[in-house]
Amino acid sequence: MQKIQNTALPADQTQNGFFGQDILSVDQFDRQGLAYIFHVAEEMRSMVERFGSADLLQGKILANLFYEPSTRTSSSFIAAMERLGGKVIPIHGVQYSSVSKGESLPDTVRTLETYADVIVLRHPDVGSAALAAHYAKKPVINAGDGIGEHPTQALLDLFTIKEELGTIDGLRVAMVGDLKYGRTVHSLTKLLKLYNVTLEFVSPPMLRIPNNICLELKHVGIPYRELENIHDVIKDVDILYVTRVQKERFSDLVAYEKVKNYYIVDPALMSQAKGKMAIMHPLPRVGEISYAVDEDPRAAYFRQMKNGMYIRMALLAAVLGKA
Amino acid sequence: MQKIQNTALPADQTQNGFFGQDILSVDQFDRQGLAYIFHVAEEMRSMVERFGSADLLQGKILANLFYEPSTRTSSSFIAAMERLGGKVIPIHGVQYSSVSKGESLPDTVRTLETYADVIVLRHPDVGSAALAAHYAKKPVINAGDGIGEHPTQALLDLFTIKEELGTIDGLRVAMVGDLKYGRTVHSLTKLLKLYNVTLEFVSPPMLRIPNNICLELKHVGIPYRELENIHDVIKDVDILYVTRVQKERFSDLVAYEKVKNYYIVDPALMSQAKGKMAIMHPLPRVGEISYAVDEDPRAAYFRQMKNGMYIRMALLAAVLGKA
Amino acid sequence: MQKIQNTALPADQTQNGFFGQDILSVDQFDRQGLAYIFHVAEEMRSMVERFGSADLLQGKILANLFYEPSTRTSSSFIAAMERLGGKVIPIHGVQYSSVSKGESLPDTVRTLETYADVIVLRHPDVGSAALAAHYAKKPVINAGDGIGEHPTQALLDLFTIKEELGTIDGLRVAMVGDLKYGRTVHSLTKLLKLYNVTLEFVSPPMLRIPNNICLELKHVGIPYRELENIHDVIKDVDILYVTRVQKERFSDLVAYEKVKNYYIVDPALMSQAKGKMAIMHPLPRVGEISYAVDEDPRAAYFRQMKNGMYIRMALLAAVLGKA
Repeated sequence: MQKIQNTALPADQTQNGFFGQDILSVDQFDRQGLAYIFHVAEEMRSMVERFGSADLLQGKILANLFYEPSTRTSSSFIAAMERLGGKVIPIHGVQYSSVSKGESLPDTVRTLETYADVIVLRHPDVGSAALAAHYAKKPVINAGDGIGEHPTQALLDLFTIKEELGTIDGLRVAMVGDLKYGRTVHSLTKLLKLYNVTLEFVSPPMLRIPNNICLELKHVGIPYRELENIHDVIKDVDILYVTRVQKERFSDLVAYEKVKNYYIVDPALMSQAKGKMAIMHPLPRVGEISYAVDEDPRAAYFRQMKNGMYIRMALLAAVLGKA
Repeated sequence: MQKIQNTALPADQTQNGFFGQDILSVDQFDRQGLAYIFHVAEEMRSMVERFGSADLLQGKILANLFYEPSTRTSSSFIAAMERLGGKVIPIHGVQYSSVSKGESLPDTVRTLETYADVIVLRHPDVGSAALAAHYAKKPVINAGDGIGEHPTQALLDLFTIKEELGTIDGLRVAMVGDLKYGRTVHSLTKLLKLYNVTLEFVSPPMLRIPNNICLELKHVGIPYRELENIHDVIKDVDILYVTRVQKERFSDLVAYEKVKNYYIVDPALMSQAKGKMAIMHPLPRVGEISYAVDEDPRAAYFRQMKNGMYIRMALLAAVLGKA
Repeated sequence: MQKIQNTALPADQTQNGFFGQDILSVDQFDRQGLAYIFHVAEEMRSMVERFGSADLLQGKILANLFYEPSTRTSSSFIAAMERLGGKVIPIHGVQYSSVSKGESLPDTVRTLETYADVIVLRHPDVGSAALAAHYAKKPVINAGDGIGEHPTQALLDLFTIKEELGTIDGLRVAMVGDLKYGRTVHSLTKLLKLYNVTLEFVSPPMLRIPNNICLELKHVGIPYRELENIHDVIKDVDILYVTRVQKERFSDLVAYEKVKNYYIVDPALMSQAKGKMAIMHPLPRVGEISYAVDEDPRAAYFRQMKNGMYIRMALLAAVLGKA
């Protein structure tokens, strides 16, 4: 759907290219777009630290439409909107509602946009955000569509790398854990391809990074390795991006027992790491990073969560033309 | 319960007659009251289009108490309150809560009114809104009580007719679909009786408009017809108000198969309609209006949704004495 | 966790001792602390009665984290935050969410505090609030942790006694009903120990006040009696604090039938009570106070609910340094 806001774009607001647009996929972003969003996110951080909130989105309403529960993402978007002075229609548990019973997503979205100025959508079906955006005149932000995309997660991950290390170019980034099914790993890798990085993919053999991603990396000339043991990379990495290795993924428990300790981040492991590096995790974690690591200044995962709020503030402000 | 606000009614605020009052039934409204609410709703539209929101209800809190899910109505009231500068206590899924377990509706409402300034109530039992209003000192707005009333839906329907055609008197209005069980059809017909309209009731034989409604129409002298086929009225109607014909209502599937195509609104049907008319639907729709009609300028159902927000803004402002 | 706000406490804000602190248990409160909170609560009442809301907590966000439903408490905290100009992230039904699945409470709380300024926690497990507070840097307010503590309920109960009678010292307070399992009775008794009161514990034999509470009362020299029949105390009490006697607690229904009428508050009983006294109940009630008593000016239970909002406003303002 041609977004109606575009018809009245003042010249100065078109420059960033986000005003009135949907945020559906990491594929929408180039280095310039990322630099813009990260710059706005940094301004959001300064504002929150100094004033708590602003009135930038005063009078604006976000319809926070969650077809499946996700407390973390939902709360982050609510906080983002509220800290910008906007208001929220929280719509959770919509699966139990008469609206969803039999009503198509396009109709639900076109109804909600008569009440709201922007729609954040979480939906279990791949492609649902694009479908919603096709029918909506107001901006739609994809907050996760099944095993499809979750672009704001990838943006906050990349933003965290930049904030923790001060740069992205030149870094050595290790992805650890379930690299086969991990949506966050795939999306972050897509964004990292835009920078000069070196990637280390550390996983059990049956949870290796998909081949198509490797082909893409080769195509753009990003050096990468595939390894099994986190100890082989810990000394050199700038970023250790940890994800969960789920026991349930293993048909062979012997295989699981053999590798499981390769993927536990604890103080002993961290003693081998560089002094300036960052441990990241999309959370929730279930044992793969020990609590004893939490007080380590390199433990960045809760800062990562906070960055999620800043990134979502930046996106909300940008698509509503107020960045 | 004598509403406490009434005891201190300034003369200028009593004129509209809504300050401090409950909104329980369409029977409360006469042409003068409707004209007042519609006038305020139009002002709300202007305000939203120009500024997004106002601070008319600054400092006021709405308890949005939904004993059964209704995303559309709930979201509409939340947006209405938020666009007026008020705040909301969203209470959904109350059926699972200890408050509802064993606690009477009067006690729940009397508790909530100690926190809030106005209560919107959705409840599965007929008469529940009147019961709540009897005990509450603060205004109660009925957002649907089972197969009872849903007055704000009827108001937004009538308001949409006026907005789309510029008038109500003199129109030919067709109601289409399940006229036997359709609560929205019954309530809208009650309001239309106050105007000089002609009604066309188009339904399968087993889903005809109830006889008591016909008797009321005869009593006040409103001309009406009962028909089976939408094609017999499409050329002449100013309003085509479509509701769902549910297959489940038919014990005889042969009967269903015979009539089902009489009630599908598609571009072919619309090619026979007047240039200036409006298609309405309370939504959700399930196939009775084809998507291909959505871009037709006469398709008014999403504008109808938006009018719901304006009507609810007008009602909230009126009962809180701020219209 | 050392609360970070403490590191920058201005001298004038440390005086009350609540800034940046958690509210976990009634044991935290002495008479001076209670006097302070009650003074602030009275100011909140004046403010609400005159203006509806304030902007004291403008820019602040409350994460209202409810692991089990409690409409009354949840709504009260939401209203409290909203009437102070703050905003709320409402998190209910978190038990269905992926955040709670497998994620520890400490991680959930540490994530939410990156979005919010204060966390209100309702959780079914005893000790959960203390656990959350241990890990959180932002203030945590316990809104009930299983059969553990529910300090804001005890505070609003004591505040109501003071508001209804003008004082606490010198009063005769009767607790009626299930004194064995009633968490509110236990917590209120703990607070009353700080004052010069006389206590009457009225219960069936198998629902008597626990012995350890009696020992504590003896230790501090608070006179008390244990009785079975409300009629033996009704003439002399200043406060009648009624709780539910649940039939399910009785293994012997004959015993239940014998005592059940001892615990019904109705107009006949109230005709024997003093003219200046107050009937309180934590609500919900299920028959133990008849509706006919509701219009009695001594019926204080809905005023008690409203006091809950004022107390929670006072606590939120105090822990955020804005009281």
